[in-house]
Amino acid sequence: MKFLRFINNNNEHVFGEYKDGEVHEIKGNIFSDYEVTKNSYELNGIKILTPCLPTKLIAVGLNYRDHAEEMKKTPPEDPMLFMKPNTTVIAHNENIIYPGHMSERVDYEGELAVVIGKVARMVEEDEALNFIFGYTCINDVTARDLQAKDIQFTRGKGFDTFAPIGPFIETEADPENLIIKTTLNGEIKQNSNTSNLIFKVPKLVSFISKVMTLHPGDIIATGTPSGISPMKKGDRVDVEIEGIGKLTNFVV
Amino acid sequence: MKFLRFINNNNEHVFGEYKDGEVHEIKGNIFSDYEVTKNSYELNGIKILTPCLPTKLIAVGLNYRDHAEEMKKTPPEDPMLFMKPNTTVIAHNENIIYPGHMSERVDYEGELAVVIGKVARMVEEDEALNFIFGYTCINDVTARDLQAKDIQFTRGKGFDTFAPIGPFIETEADPENLIIKTTLNGEIKQNSNTSNLIFKVPKLVSFISKVMTLHPGDIIATGTPSGISPMKKGDRVDVEIEGIGKLTNFVV
Repeated sequence: MKFLRFINNNNEHVFGEYKDGEVHEIKGNIFSDYEVTKNSYELNGIKILTPCLPTKLIAVGLNYRDHAEEMKKTPPEDPMLFMKPNTTVIAHNENIIYPGHMSERVDYEGELAVVIGKVARMVEEDEALNFIFGYTCINDVTARDLQAKDIQFTRGKGFDTFAPIGPFIETEADPENLIIKTTLNGEIKQNSNTSNLIFKVPKLVSFISKVMTLHPGDIIATGTPSGISPMKKGDRVDVEIEGIGKLTNFVV
Repeated sequence: MKFLRFINNNNEHVFGEYKDGEVHEIKGNIFSDYEVTKNSYELNGIKILTPCLPTKLIAVGLNYRDHAEEMKKTPPEDPMLFMKPNTTVIAHNENIIYPGHMSERVDYEGELAVVIGKVARMVEEDEALNFIFGYTCINDVTARDLQAKDIQFTRGKGFDTFAPIGPFIETEADPENLIIKTTLNGEIKQNSNTSNLIFKVPKLVSFISKVMTLHPGDIIATGTPSGISPMKKGDRVDVEIEGIGKLTNFVV
């Protein structure tokens, strides 16, 4: 199933199921109890919101070998975790605000994002998939100059609007075999497959859950493949993952 | 004024004002509208909760020169930011759970914490104090071995229970002149004054607000002075800040 969040005709923020080319409004919360109603909308006619409201957003660095090489880093022995504040999260079609007051180099990073479905604490790898609700696209926007300068990634990864997610959460995807592409103004910049992830999704969920309790709607950004480069104001950036969707944003 | 959160006789989580040796129950939210009621409690007779529920917890590394020296690091040119997930937050008298499955060295770090009172975005230094609600104590518990190994601080600083805060939020303190002490099993380990902070509180609020929007109840941990050392199971740790309060926790 493919879920999203949007603004309905009563100006309410609601979940929807995207099926047969239409958005079917949902009553309730997809992470607990809900029903699909008979109200339907054209996808093009609605304002899409972030597909969930994460209480936290955990990301993994250097999780594709080719990206580790382009960054001239050795892939780590354990997953390298960092966080993006939830104030970074924006929706499909929203604007990435260039923080020109602090940075002169802001890059896209297309990534597969895991959306947690159940409270996860001390989960083993072989049961990790049970705690996943689904998958979405994320652009782990990064002020590359500040990432290098600060060593800690928090500032470089943490500006408001630096985590576009969406548009959909797909519940049926196989996280170990998905084509992932990032295009900048229509030109393909990143083109890989999640089969190239060094630490696979079950390992990431298990490892992170042994550090911190994960809650429904929390996001794990699984790392970016090679092909990073800077964006500038006026650019359009798309992160597309096979079977999940295409996330579009604009830099302003 | 001195505020806290606690469980009242109806088993509700409420705010209170601590005054004249008694806790006066508050109706409403101290960050928006509230009134102090006539219901009062003995401090010793109540279960104290975390004094607020931060949506995010931003911390500053190497912000006392003596601590930078003991870590053999040069103090950074800009505040060095990192985050602790909000799942780290526990209350006064609660237990710090030793993550023995991943770490063999877990340290206390006593710190002054700033509690944000109003939505703060792109705030200048000279107006920063207007966005602060008050001050509390924090123990920025750190798995020192993982902090060194991962380089990114997220795992080492991010285990569940690794951010005791409280017991009180004091609204009247001068953040530039407060004695701060950490004791381990009664022995003084850290003993400094917030006048030794490299980046002062208004600078921190301003700097962070130019990266990410801060919300009421969000916490900024301002850094720890020298005197770090490990804790072990069975230890009692106290962080005491002049005029604010004493935060006690136990390692299990």
